[in-house]
Amino acid sequence: MKSHTAYMTFNTEERREFVRITGDVQKAVDESGVGEGMVLVSAMHITAAVWVNDDEPGLHADALEWLDKVAPPSWKPPANDVARELLPDPGDYRHHAGGEDNGDAHFKNLLTHHQVILPITEGKLDLGPWQAVFYCEFDGRRKKRLVIKVLGE
Amino acid sequence: MKSHTAYMTFNTEERREFVRITGDVQKAVDESGVGEGMVLVSAMHITAAVWVNDDEPGLHADALEWLDKVAPPSWKPPANDVARELLPDPGDYRHHAGGEDNGDAHFKNLLTHHQVILPITEGKLDLGPWQAVFYCEFDGRRKKRLVIKVLGE
Amino acid sequence: MKSHTAYMTFNTEERREFVRITGDVQKAVDESGVGEGMVLVSAMHITAAVWVNDDEPGLHADALEWLDKVAPPSWKPPANDVARELLPDPGDYRHHAGGEDNGDAHFKNLLTHHQVILPITEGKLDLGPWQAVFYCEFDGRRKKRLVIKVLGE
Repeated sequence: MKSHTAYMTFNTEERREFVRITGDVQKAVDESGVGEGMVLVSAMHITAAVWVNDDEPGLHADALEWLDKVAPPSWKPPANDVARELLPDPGDYRHHAGGEDNGDAHFKNLLTHHQVILPITEGKLDLGPWQAVFYCEFDGRRKKRLVIKVLGE
Repeated sequence: MKSHTAYMTFNTEERREFVRITGDVQKAVDESGVGEGMVLVSAMHITAAVWVNDDEPGLHADALEWLDKVAPPSWKPPANDVARELLPDPGDYRHHAGGEDNGDAHFKNLLTHHQVILPITEGKLDLGPWQAVFYCEFDGRRKKRLVIKVLGE
Repeated sequence: MKSHTAYMTFNTEERREFVRITGDVQKAVDESGVGEGMVLVSAMHITAAVWVNDDEPGLHADALEWLDKVAPPSWKPPANDVARELLPDPGDYRHHAGGEDNGDAHFKNLLTHHQVILPITEGKLDLGPWQAVFYCEFDGRRKKRLVIKVLGE
């Protein structure tokens, strides 16, 4: 059995960003020498996520608008009445009592999920034609880490 | 270490369908000869999902109604005011600019998650009594694939 | 290759509870003798979840309030208009026709996801500084099980 561990560090310019990392994950697989196995790609923070989806900017803008309604920030006005009602009653996250303002990012992490596991077949990520891997930053502009763990033979 | 890869192809009659695949996953485990390990079950498309839940038709109908409110289609009228407000403002997904109409299916994929990983113990899927595995199609009536990857000894 | 399986049983006093299990997962890793690998932590029920997030009571209260709006119970009055509209139309889950009252817990399971997989590096759970592992009970006060499967070398 072979295993290999790689870490990535992000420090996004924007508070929220989707960063394509498919090539970085494949690189870790290459380094591992694994031909048949699995690779775990997991955010090490609780306000970020990993999403496998289409590399299409319109979709990413749609996703951010939608996530801001379903898991609304309190650091900007709610997008509409639904977002307002999905905020805590009254008005702000309990989590912010300690000075944080990223409660929404915790729920975006929950919705999007903080990790994926990708199959490796003949040394390649065994993905569908439109599947790209994204690190989804919901509370950036500071150093955040992600772990890549390859397991197989 | 043993590994085994199997693929399934779906071409559902309905646009949205839940297809039970527990037996197919167990069959792939049987073929692998793995007694102790894990099996990854992962949609290769970004408008489908894999869900472990109850094989109960009422629950599936509830799930589809609920998903159509939280991640609303724009190819039919919104179910109610909440669904209308969760659509992009104004009116349609940016993702549809290229002629697509499946923006909602991408978010149903995000909510439901596109994959699960099941433990294998003594050669059997180590599931609870009510846990069945479903391929969840959100944009069907065309060929879609799923990968099953078994790893263990 | 080494593998190890452990089970945990919960019987929460409250209907809904978040139970920290990071130490229990590490204990299973210790028992396995695995230095490099992965550990799957998976609820064996369809009305519970496993969440990796902050061990902060305010956040957990926020999460429960939010989950009760997005995936509303019908065993208590809806929290507000959004929760009311996200309930099935009209009024109750089809799943309850058989006498159940836990439809909302199935969707909380879907949102939160019923499992995580954690990397193991040098014998330790390779988690970020704020990542703790929680069993999330959404329909408790009865015996429920969780499986921990360790794989590696």
